[in-house]
Amino acid sequence: MKIENKEYRTIWFDETNQLVKIIDQTKLPHQFIIKDLKTVKDAVNAIKTMEVRGAPLIGGTAAYGIVLAIKENKDPEFIQKSSEELIQSRPTAINLKWAVDRMLNKLSGVKSDEVLNITLKEANDICDEDEKFCVNIGLNGLKIIEDIYNKTKKTVNILTHCNAGWLATINWGTATSPIYHAHKKGIPVHVWVDETRPRNQGANLTSYELNEEGIANTIIADNAGGILMQRGDVDMCIVGTDRTLSTGDVCNKIGTYLKALAANDNNVPFYVALPSSTIDWEIKNFKDIPIEERNSEELSHIEGIDEDNKLKKILIYPKKSKAMNLAFDVTPAKYVTGLITEKGICEASSAALSKMFK
Amino acid sequence: MKIENKEYRTIWFDETNQLVKIIDQTKLPHQFIIKDLKTVKDAVNAIKTMEVRGAPLIGGTAAYGIVLAIKENKDPEFIQKSSEELIQSRPTAINLKWAVDRMLNKLSGVKSDEVLNITLKEANDICDEDEKFCVNIGLNGLKIIEDIYNKTKKTVNILTHCNAGWLATINWGTATSPIYHAHKKGIPVHVWVDETRPRNQGANLTSYELNEEGIANTIIADNAGGILMQRGDVDMCIVGTDRTLSTGDVCNKIGTYLKALAANDNNVPFYVALPSSTIDWEIKNFKDIPIEERNSEELSHIEGIDEDNKLKKILIYPKKSKAMNLAFDVTPAKYVTGLITEKGICEASSAALSKMFK
Repeated sequence: MKIENKEYRTIWFDETNQLVKIIDQTKLPHQFIIKDLKTVKDAVNAIKTMEVRGAPLIGGTAAYGIVLAIKENKDPEFIQKSSEELIQSRPTAINLKWAVDRMLNKLSGVKSDEVLNITLKEANDICDEDEKFCVNIGLNGLKIIEDIYNKTKKTVNILTHCNAGWLATINWGTATSPIYHAHKKGIPVHVWVDETRPRNQGANLTSYELNEEGIANTIIADNAGGILMQRGDVDMCIVGTDRTLSTGDVCNKIGTYLKALAANDNNVPFYVALPSSTIDWEIKNFKDIPIEERNSEELSHIEGIDEDNKLKKILIYPKKSKAMNLAFDVTPAKYVTGLITEKGICEASSAALSKMFK
Repeated sequence: MKIENKEYRTIWFDETNQLVKIIDQTKLPHQFIIKDLKTVKDAVNAIKTMEVRGAPLIGGTAAYGIVLAIKENKDPEFIQKSSEELIQSRPTAINLKWAVDRMLNKLSGVKSDEVLNITLKEANDICDEDEKFCVNIGLNGLKIIEDIYNKTKKTVNILTHCNAGWLATINWGTATSPIYHAHKKGIPVHVWVDETRPRNQGANLTSYELNEEGIANTIIADNAGGILMQRGDVDMCIVGTDRTLSTGDVCNKIGTYLKALAANDNNVPFYVALPSSTIDWEIKNFKDIPIEERNSEELSHIEGIDEDNKLKKILIYPKKSKAMNLAFDVTPAKYVTGLITEKGICEASSAALSKMFK
């Protein structure tokens, strides 16, 4: 999608310089910086520090991370160690492991002089597939938006949480893809963008990317979705997911669950958009999902620009106060109206997911 | 309660200098500043700019505002205009009008040379009564905390939203009063403090005042309450209210409703603490409550201290983005376990409220 009217993907392999390029998302929206990843350590760090984030994009970054590892050192022990470091770089996202496993599978029995080309092709394929999945998610979700528009003939108001936009994927996004497709089709849409504390990825990334595509949007406090739904100002919610259990329970950015409860209480449809790579077929009980606890400085400190247009980080909490920073919560399947996937829309249940994907 | 080990009220009349003193809450927690109010305009501005906030405290400030108006000019037209300005200074808090009406009632038929003493006594009485109400709310709510502690013999984890602490009242607070009373009785308590965007009054005020009283507390993102309840880490919620309808519906700081939904979904008791002065006996349908929309800069900009310990305000949103800042939402009575009032704990229903207060 576009930034300053130029088309980008979030990650790409630079053939000339033989390295990986990413958009440093920790600097958005205040600075647009393209960064080089030259080693697998760079890839691990980019994931850890959230220069790249969003389940599909960290999957793509992990895939290119394996390519970078192979460029450094083809020794199986090094590759194994690098794989583990990549998988451990964020504990909650399921498709990190999925991407690394898929890359490692390509290695077995391959001749040493072919291994780089083969893995690079696989990483590129993972990214191309992700983009195709996102397009399909968009076309499937578009039908829901179109239905609402055809009934009301008014601007469709969509609430989203965090960033499941193109910046969270390779392109198009998951939750935003139906919105981009609706906009391109001329359906009037307006997006309520949850600020999404503590990292404000709704404000910093979702609103930013919607602005760059010319889509009307308004940032609101995470606290505000409830009353907007009580007032009838939300036609539907669409969010992304970091891990969807085969039961239909959805693990996503902290606060998603609260919006699902409000949607349920006000008869607002609540959709989750996902590529099937984020489905976890193993864990059955959502209480077994490891929930990442991140540094509390993400809460107590915040970055922005001061009156001299300089990037500044400030402490916003009392000096004596402690804070706790859980990154995800779980929305039980019963609060999810439907899962918008690359194959179609399905109910959030074991039966429906098995039927569609197994 | 204490700040730096000295006892304060949030507002008081300075006899020596014949003016009103307040703690400027917009500067907390980074600076502790006591400010003079010399005119009714100062009182209106203090309410508008939220140097004082919280339903009971703005009631007290409006009462002293009438005193300041009378000191300036006893002309009935000026008093009338000042009263209206005070009532209009914040649209949602019900006891603003209650306090002004009570002050005006004292004026009728009073001799000109007595009017200042009589109104000053009435403003002092309003504040004394509020403090007594808050003590009683504390003693009534204490029983609930004690019951939980007697069952578990473990630290009682209490979640609160925004600041319904002593800084929102004259002293003790509403939601915090049971907590302060439990702490003074030796019951181990720990408070989950919702940051409470956009003005962060949970972090800036509630955590600050709990720290100053030595009560264990942890600031969390507004998004986090849901998963903490899913995990069983919250024993009860207590919040305050800006306006409680006679139906039991509770209008409070935006985001309260979302916590009530999560509490309901996880069988966590959800209490609202209030003095009866915040009950609105007139409005029957919560959709008729005027919901204040505040300046969106409260969302897009934030203040804190930089690495040189200087107070800085920074822009945290993309420059092109719009934001919307609704200040309150409504929690339907069915999600409220009980109302903790100065007279006792009662069900959130017309019947129970009428029985207790009419």
